[in-house]
Amino acid sequence: MRLTKTPVTGMKDILPREMAIRDYVIGLIKETYRDYGFYSIDTPSMEQIENLCSKQGGDNEKLIFKILKRGEKLKVDTAMTEEEVVDCGMRYDLTLPLARYYANHANNLPSPFKAMQIGNVWRADRPQKGRFRQFTQCDIDILGESSTLAEIELILATTSLLGKLDFRDFTVAINDRRFLRAMAAYSGFKREDYDDVFIILDKIDKIGEDKVAEELKELGYDGEVINKYLNLFTTVTHDLEGVTTCREVLGEFLEPEAADDLEAIISSVEGAKDCEFNINFRPTMVRGQAYYTGTIFEIDMKGSSGSVAGGGRYDEMIGKFTGQNTPAVGFSIGFERIVMLLLEEDYQIPIAKEKMAFLLEKGILGDSLLKILQLAKKERESGKEVSLIHMKKNKKFQKEQLMNEGYGKIVEYFRDTEIL
Amino acid sequence: MRLTKTPVTGMKDILPREMAIRDYVIGLIKETYRDYGFYSIDTPSMEQIENLCSKQGGDNEKLIFKILKRGEKLKVDTAMTEEEVVDCGMRYDLTLPLARYYANHANNLPSPFKAMQIGNVWRADRPQKGRFRQFTQCDIDILGESSTLAEIELILATTSLLGKLDFRDFTVAINDRRFLRAMAAYSGFKREDYDDVFIILDKIDKIGEDKVAEELKELGYDGEVINKYLNLFTTVTHDLEGVTTCREVLGEFLEPEAADDLEAIISSVEGAKDCEFNINFRPTMVRGQAYYTGTIFEIDMKGSSGSVAGGGRYDEMIGKFTGQNTPAVGFSIGFERIVMLLLEEDYQIPIAKEKMAFLLEKGILGDSLLKILQLAKKERESGKEVSLIHMKKNKKFQKEQLMNEGYGKIVEYFRDTEIL
Repeated sequence: MRLTKTPVTGMKDILPREMAIRDYVIGLIKETYRDYGFYSIDTPSMEQIENLCSKQGGDNEKLIFKILKRGEKLKVDTAMTEEEVVDCGMRYDLTLPLARYYANHANNLPSPFKAMQIGNVWRADRPQKGRFRQFTQCDIDILGESSTLAEIELILATTSLLGKLDFRDFTVAINDRRFLRAMAAYSGFKREDYDDVFIILDKIDKIGEDKVAEELKELGYDGEVINKYLNLFTTVTHDLEGVTTCREVLGEFLEPEAADDLEAIISSVEGAKDCEFNINFRPTMVRGQAYYTGTIFEIDMKGSSGSVAGGGRYDEMIGKFTGQNTPAVGFSIGFERIVMLLLEEDYQIPIAKEKMAFLLEKGILGDSLLKILQLAKKERESGKEVSLIHMKKNKKFQKEQLMNEGYGKIVEYFRDTEIL
Repeated sequence: MRLTKTPVTGMKDILPREMAIRDYVIGLIKETYRDYGFYSIDTPSMEQIENLCSKQGGDNEKLIFKILKRGEKLKVDTAMTEEEVVDCGMRYDLTLPLARYYANHANNLPSPFKAMQIGNVWRADRPQKGRFRQFTQCDIDILGESSTLAEIELILATTSLLGKLDFRDFTVAINDRRFLRAMAAYSGFKREDYDDVFIILDKIDKIGEDKVAEELKELGYDGEVINKYLNLFTTVTHDLEGVTTCREVLGEFLEPEAADDLEAIISSVEGAKDCEFNINFRPTMVRGQAYYTGTIFEIDMKGSSGSVAGGGRYDEMIGKFTGQNTPAVGFSIGFERIVMLLLEEDYQIPIAKEKMAFLLEKGILGDSLLKILQLAKKERESGKEVSLIHMKKNKKFQKEQLMNEGYGKIVEYFRDTEIL
């Protein structure tokens, strides 16, 4: 019986052209984030099943790839439920593992700790175009810093990276869970309804204000409350002035620090950014994760639906491991989307080395082969990539292919060539 | 209930110091192998369970982490066996996935295809010191090249990498399954006994010749056959001359091409190597994997038990996927062992950037903060790593810690500092 040639459902093999871009982007990410003082770390791909199913991951918890117990602990024949046969699962993001990592190692880490983590995550999502069940995430997080210095550095580092990849026309949008709550309270919603209201508000860009009003009404909320709420979003502009408006209109519903924070972040990023982009206040932005406690932010790119990066403050997650809350804020770049955009625009990796192919007639042996190997060594030492390949019958076609693969220089060696 | 802080059994979190070395080595591997014309590729961490359990992986197949089926396909309550509840598993090496990848994409890949793959593999081994259930492998393989040019390039590339990491005193040992078979046949063993004989022979370095003879006797082999066999290994020297001896003594039992191949590899590598090491013929080397068909080789390092790299030719694996055999040969570097050796000798990564810390008194805001952010930007543009950190109460201790982390320059900013 033949073995199966295709990858498992929903996962993909990565071909050389895409992989060259991935390697390049990962190199650039590591370099850029190191420049901002982030330390590279890694956590295992698997986590205890109890941690993964602890309600930190929201809907992602439904998509966990679970790992079967092994040896004597596994009793499939008598087991009645999933829980009895699994002990761990594949991580669905890098944030929960980071929180566990920090809780486990805080004594041996700098404080505050600026972490960068690049790694695969797995989600058993329904397969769809451009979406895979294994994909790479790149996160930076600052743990142990409660001030906006953390947000500012995360946003500057992330946008600096996008600038180096020649991305233009992108927008950093920022909001704060404290603003979301204040606006809901001011309008007259009850605390216990906030989450339901926010889920609908989050759709305003897609379905429009009228549809949002309609859906809120369907859930039984008071018409006046809804009107007051939606009016707010038309009044508030998407800039620093909008923050000031909120401060004035929301009055005591809004902690003044929340407004101070957004103002500090927006003006600092605006003044210290190292490439061209806008940073906007977006009061309708919710971001799905339940664990966010304060600022939330994302990056939208013209011509790309959905965000290319997202993050926020989650000051209460590490406490789930340690019993003591630690300020934490992270920014995750949409690595797969960025690679897709670069592939689509046929991105050329800058300053690649010159590539040479040595094309050898078959049967070159002994001293001749040795001399060729030594020439290849010399070329490599002088900074070139050199590949030794045997000549094929259809040499013309072979040379065309090599040129397509980027070999700018092809040197041919025959059995009777005298090699100097 | 608190969440669990420790990683899953047998896996490890990677702290910044080790991670910096890992990142550096991976960067060096990618650069070195690219210089030799290898293309970076990637395959999913999971493979179909049928592929993983197809007898290509030997003992590793007993150590597979298996993935539970999902949704309606999973029926734990009625299932009686493991097979009913799993559909895929974690890869235990990178060779089987590469063979599948090549079978799947050969039409879109250069021929011969020189692949490099760096990735994690998982084995549910009994946890022990220095051995983990998730670890990184780095493989290079040449597919579609039947001549020794493939072996020569693999050995030169791998040794070049070790040289760049300042490793000295290592030995490349080489043998060939064809030599193993010829020596067994010449001595009088039967073909069906070869595998059992080789398993015992493989232990000769550990247990010595007498013990090997004893164990072979216990299995019922003829005393004269055993003597003839073990005498061979005392006669044959571990160099090119040893290959010549084999050619003469084994006569028609040995295909002359096998001897030609070993001679070509040893003399070419010897003559074109770019750092100091020995390459030896080691007729007693077996290497575990059943899939090897021809040359086998490994690298031993003084002061490190076990090999730091291993590989060989496996001309029959791709055919298991395509129905048509394709020549294939690979060399896998022991990434984890190399990182461990570097950590043990307190390896210093060369040419790291200068690291600066900007230490900010708390409460610096507005224009002052902006100026500091802009200064940081300027320093980064001039090639430095700059981290912005808030001053702590125990500033003296904080500065000591920063210096320990490699910050060579620390600049302090106070609320009343005038920033120029």
